[in-house]
Amino acid sequence: MISRNPRLAVVGCSGAVGREMLAILEQRRFPCKQVRMLASQRSAGTEIAFQGKPHAVELLSPKSLADIDLAFFSAGRNVSEEFAPIAARQGATVIDNSSAFRMDERVPLVVPEINGDVLDQWENSGIIANPNCTTIIILMALTPIQRAVGIERMVVSTYQAASGAGAAVMEELQQQARDYVADRPLTTDVIGRPYIFNIFSHDSPVDDAGHNEEETKLLRETHKIWDDDELRISATCVRVPVLRAHSAAINLMLNNPMSVAEARKLLGDAPGVTLVDDRDKNQFPEPIHATGRDDVLVGRLREDPSQPRGKGLSLFESGDQLRKGAALNAIQIAESLMK
Amino acid sequence: MISRNPRLAVVGCSGAVGREMLAILEQRRFPCKQVRMLASQRSAGTEIAFQGKPHAVELLSPKSLADIDLAFFSAGRNVSEEFAPIAARQGATVIDNSSAFRMDERVPLVVPEINGDVLDQWENSGIIANPNCTTIIILMALTPIQRAVGIERMVVSTYQAASGAGAAVMEELQQQARDYVADRPLTTDVIGRPYIFNIFSHDSPVDDAGHNEEETKLLRETHKIWDDDELRISATCVRVPVLRAHSAAINLMLNNPMSVAEARKLLGDAPGVTLVDDRDKNQFPEPIHATGRDDVLVGRLREDPSQPRGKGLSLFESGDQLRKGAALNAIQIAESLMK
Repeated sequence: MISRNPRLAVVGCSGAVGREMLAILEQRRFPCKQVRMLASQRSAGTEIAFQGKPHAVELLSPKSLADIDLAFFSAGRNVSEEFAPIAARQGATVIDNSSAFRMDERVPLVVPEINGDVLDQWENSGIIANPNCTTIIILMALTPIQRAVGIERMVVSTYQAASGAGAAVMEELQQQARDYVADRPLTTDVIGRPYIFNIFSHDSPVDDAGHNEEETKLLRETHKIWDDDELRISATCVRVPVLRAHSAAINLMLNNPMSVAEARKLLGDAPGVTLVDDRDKNQFPEPIHATGRDDVLVGRLREDPSQPRGKGLSLFESGDQLRKGAALNAIQIAESLMK
Repeated sequence: MISRNPRLAVVGCSGAVGREMLAILEQRRFPCKQVRMLASQRSAGTEIAFQGKPHAVELLSPKSLADIDLAFFSAGRNVSEEFAPIAARQGATVIDNSSAFRMDERVPLVVPEINGDVLDQWENSGIIANPNCTTIIILMALTPIQRAVGIERMVVSTYQAASGAGAAVMEELQQQARDYVADRPLTTDVIGRPYIFNIFSHDSPVDDAGHNEEETKLLRETHKIWDDDELRISATCVRVPVLRAHSAAINLMLNNPMSVAEARKLLGDAPGVTLVDDRDKNQFPEPIHATGRDDVLVGRLREDPSQPRGKGLSLFESGDQLRKGAALNAIQIAESLMK
């Protein structure tokens, strides 16, 4: 559905996801006739190296999105709301990393390993949405289990990295480390609080029922991706001082029993998932090991004795927020459209 | 049951808990006729200031525990197993911070605000056990709810600090920050892995069912403290790069309904608990705010829509691991024995 050698635009090319996107496009030798680097006023006029050549960063405008076959958007919700429809109207297929269109009925919400088939019957509206990073990472390991035995309810607690809040927060977390070591007051200009040696409830708005936006996204997006509005989810989303990989502790209530051995076999064979589950050596998924990897790590598989025999399963995941949680998944969507 | 002006021994006085113990004894003007500072070969011969005077640190031996009315032990399980019974036989009341005697039927396992009454009918075996830090902190907020409506099942994910692994790990975490900032390889002599900007499954042995020791302690100790072996618990214990306050995300299945407003009122009035629950300002418990405080912080109170109406409740806690999680609770046990 996309030309095999598209004219490409990367909107938000200087952000954390944008830069990761360019690195992955290079690594995967993503075919493209040309690349247009687009950003806000702040970065326009600078240069970015890509595939060995310097590329000028241009100011994002309606005109800058003309003659584009494929546009990756990762410049935030407001930019996507304004410019993604313009790009689509001018003929581009937009893969949008923001939350702007995820719940739009006309827009597919895609993790290729999970529901890539929705693209087959897609009547091209021009925009495809990349799910939230937490949703992608969690569902990578849960989908094989869901398909095999069904999941009735899940209780999720997250351990989320700075990268989800953007490059400036990643930089500020490292600045706080320098401040701490130098015995200076911590720099809190962006995140507004101590982050080094601290954790805090996810920095998204909290609704009247007490859920933050990240928790609500996980619920709604999972329902859409799995096409199952009955699934019950209780989530607590928390930021930890980690640079770029999200983790989650997950407790499942299964519809039908599954043993730990069966789950281990299933996840060991699942695409995009690597099992890290060595009880003797106490080696389980860690964000530092997930960083820079395409696969999501899963481990700590164990039966939950607080539920009926075989119906409770606990596990732990870590996945690179910038790769599978964002940039890689968007590129995989594009690749599956080019097949 | 203890003299109002006891002869005191602090075993493990140079460890993280021991030092916190001395600081709290000073702050609370804990009455004592004399204090004997006891430690291993490594610290014996040094001096520790207490109540304005230098005290020689003596080598722990059976003789060093003679003529003692009250002994606080926090030098690890092996030291307690060997020396706590010796202290008790020589007439001391031992308050033991290790796991050595917690599950011993003759030994009370006490959090004064929760089950201090067990000390009233206690036939003095000489030893009282201080529960695990995670257990204490979690139960501080859950006990009022348990008493009011009953708890059938809980799913707990922890965010545990370095202090629980000892002073050397706290120091190594800070050393790793210095290493990171100086762009040197991380020092991993004690904890054996990157800890700065990382999280990992709790560093205690994992049993054949896949549970680590910290998770098993939480289950067994809660059963003993609440005197309720039916309560179902599913726990995942994780270390985060925080210095000295543990946090936990907790999802409850209640026996009888309780509204968020009722829970907020109940916890706002509970002893040893401070409510931090501002949805508009996104202010909830954080380890950095719990550090150095006696109270356990609780917030993020919300109904869990994945359970029957009113029967599901979620919350989040942070508490100082060295204070209420260890030293303070031990001292409060002693104070309640002196009343």
